[in-house]
Amino acid sequence: MRMYDLIAKKRDGHELSKEEIDFFVENYTSGDIPDYQASALCMAIFFQDMTTDERAHLTTAMVDSGDTIDLSSIEGIKVDKHSTGGVGDTTTLILAPLVASLGAPVAKMSGRGLGHTGGTIDKLEAVPGFHVEIDKQEFIDLVNKNKVSVIGQTGNLTPADKKLYGLRDVTATVNSIPLIASSIMSKKIAAGADAIVLDVKTGAGAFMKTLEDSRELAKAMVGIGNRVGRNTMAVISDMSQPLGNAIGNALEVEEAIDTLKGNGPEDLTELCLTLGSQMVVLAGKADSLDHARQLLKENIDNGKALEQFRTFLASQGGDGSVVDDPKKMPQAQYKIELPSQKDGYVSEMVADQIGISAMMLGAGRATKESEIDMAVGLYLHKKIGDEVKKGESLLTIYSNQQDVEEVKTKLYENITINESSIERPTLVHEMITE
Amino acid sequence: MRMYDLIAKKRDGHELSKEEIDFFVENYTSGDIPDYQASALCMAIFFQDMTTDERAHLTTAMVDSGDTIDLSSIEGIKVDKHSTGGVGDTTTLILAPLVASLGAPVAKMSGRGLGHTGGTIDKLEAVPGFHVEIDKQEFIDLVNKNKVSVIGQTGNLTPADKKLYGLRDVTATVNSIPLIASSIMSKKIAAGADAIVLDVKTGAGAFMKTLEDSRELAKAMVGIGNRVGRNTMAVISDMSQPLGNAIGNALEVEEAIDTLKGNGPEDLTELCLTLGSQMVVLAGKADSLDHARQLLKENIDNGKALEQFRTFLASQGGDGSVVDDPKKMPQAQYKIELPSQKDGYVSEMVADQIGISAMMLGAGRATKESEIDMAVGLYLHKKIGDEVKKGESLLTIYSNQQDVEEVKTKLYENITINESSIERPTLVHEMITE
Repeated sequence: MRMYDLIAKKRDGHELSKEEIDFFVENYTSGDIPDYQASALCMAIFFQDMTTDERAHLTTAMVDSGDTIDLSSIEGIKVDKHSTGGVGDTTTLILAPLVASLGAPVAKMSGRGLGHTGGTIDKLEAVPGFHVEIDKQEFIDLVNKNKVSVIGQTGNLTPADKKLYGLRDVTATVNSIPLIASSIMSKKIAAGADAIVLDVKTGAGAFMKTLEDSRELAKAMVGIGNRVGRNTMAVISDMSQPLGNAIGNALEVEEAIDTLKGNGPEDLTELCLTLGSQMVVLAGKADSLDHARQLLKENIDNGKALEQFRTFLASQGGDGSVVDDPKKMPQAQYKIELPSQKDGYVSEMVADQIGISAMMLGAGRATKESEIDMAVGLYLHKKIGDEVKKGESLLTIYSNQQDVEEVKTKLYENITINESSIERPTLVHEMITE
Repeated sequence: MRMYDLIAKKRDGHELSKEEIDFFVENYTSGDIPDYQASALCMAIFFQDMTTDERAHLTTAMVDSGDTIDLSSIEGIKVDKHSTGGVGDTTTLILAPLVASLGAPVAKMSGRGLGHTGGTIDKLEAVPGFHVEIDKQEFIDLVNKNKVSVIGQTGNLTPADKKLYGLRDVTATVNSIPLIASSIMSKKIAAGADAIVLDVKTGAGAFMKTLEDSRELAKAMVGIGNRVGRNTMAVISDMSQPLGNAIGNALEVEEAIDTLKGNGPEDLTELCLTLGSQMVVLAGKADSLDHARQLLKENIDNGKALEQFRTFLASQGGDGSVVDDPKKMPQAQYKIELPSQKDGYVSEMVADQIGISAMMLGAGRATKESEIDMAVGLYLHKKIGDEVKKGESLLTIYSNQQDVEEVKTKLYENITINESSIERPTLVHEMITE
């Protein structure tokens, strides 16, 4: 088998076999196929796409390229959730205890990463004492005991994907549906998921800017999941503006607590119920999405979800009492309002730029070396569609530096107030269940 | 400027500017842009094509990447001819003296190369004493004096093209019209051509198998030439079977002599008159193709073309008397006929496979290290459309080895005799003059 022939075959629009895809992934990972052939193949895939079979083979080959996490000693169906990334996305913090409260095991391997705020682990570390330095056996025991635990990324998962992503990143071949879909799915599968729920973001603040592209990506991932024996569902949700009201680490944990108490922002609550219903159905804890949603609502109302969060935090060294008193988490020195400069209706809040404003305050890492400030961030009082009077606060800036003029300027640039009223954006565009 | 952005721009179907193409070619040649980005760009070009402006900029950038030959001290318009490559293509040997006999300067830089037979220089070296070890000044002086000289490739011409071609060859991106066209044109322009005539071969034995692809390539090259100030014309000619009757080095020189005497094969003669007419018009020695053709025919009939060949051979140390007695060139030890195995009509002679048969006899180089046997080759007695009787010779094998069974088998496999008659293939499909 020659790599040249694989490139030519894909270039000419033909389907690669499982053997050919395995040959490519194995030999590229080992360094026997050079980058310049791999990048030519990726560009050919960009133009010629891949069939569901090809995507599934690529996913499996990338899973097989490295370690896989064996969660078989955890009872029940392990459902993982993945979001394609947005601003102010606190769903994981809420869904982990909420779904676990219905007896569905949540064995979450999570990351830190770069971005507007920290990753899920960073956010949880805003809770005094909370840590993820537990070994794999303790992780499994905790899930069996409490139904929920979070651990840092461990092992050499999907090295083929890491290497290929690095190459795609410098050869303008990231933006290819089959390559994105197999990259995401391979990581979830290698991390031990039995079933997967995907939150595909769409809009200005998302990687996928259009509903059409988002739908295509969602269908691609659901197609792969079902083809490789992992039941998969997806939601396409809005990221034209930040999700919920809080952007920042301690602020998002506080918002998660509010939501688990039934007092969260409407959009965040709704998305958690939607994603949570899919997780509960896939975990076999309800036989319909409607039934699952009802069960989730009940556990918010009766306090079980909140208690599950308290137990979870405590089980990993955290101070569970933050659920009663969130101010025990780091608090910012300055709270600075951003007043509206005119009367009108909020018509635009550019999600990623608002996220960058939070990062400028110290909420996220610009480089791997950056330190996160747990206390800082933004809290939105107005969102798209809301009426606002001149001088009324659009949002509060939580900062540990007094001078936030630069951040304010950026925020004003990215929040538009219009004279005419505008509808709130649709939150959940579509659910893709097969 | 970032290479990433250039790849993305081309990937998305936009036109690259002259500055962007210069940036790519300069930095790729210097090694500052890695192969994996260049191959991604080539694959994007494969799918998104290039405009005439982009092709011209790429050609010019590749010319500028290395040395260029300055022929300005040669009087007159220097017209170069290029063929995209075929089997038994003796046109250069004929056209050089024929066109020169009308006073058009022919300053030919030629190669040896791999293939079914040697290159133009190898073929000429079948003439006892002929050599191309002359310096550049002598070359220029000879053209000014005799209107024709041939020299080996000199200088570091178009290193960008060499490097890029090497990469395309292993990344399945050779077969891209804009990349092929700019590669060919850059070499001709760097070699000092003022005007260019292109012989684009089409059919089973050619790089371009279909008339449509050949036309596209021809138009691409004519477009580039005219865009960069080099008047360019093209002919699309048949390569479904070998051109002329001779395949081999001394055999082709002998066929060239026959043709210059007016006794050459009909197809070879016709193609030389067609290409020669374009060269003469572009050199400003006739005001129409018809007039040019008439002048060329006259110089065949009156012997001037043949005398020009004699003078040319002698001017570079060759024995000019071979034009009277071609048997002074190396002669093969064995002449073996290939009898037809049945009555019928020749319906197929697979050009490239017949060329490989000649190479198996030693007429061409399989590797750079191979030695060419000047004497050996094939001489066709029948071509497509000809009637043949069982036992009648299809061709003569000129060999220095007695056992040619393997070659015979290959030849029989690639010559088809049909019961029903068939038309001769069209020789000149199209002329593209603007």
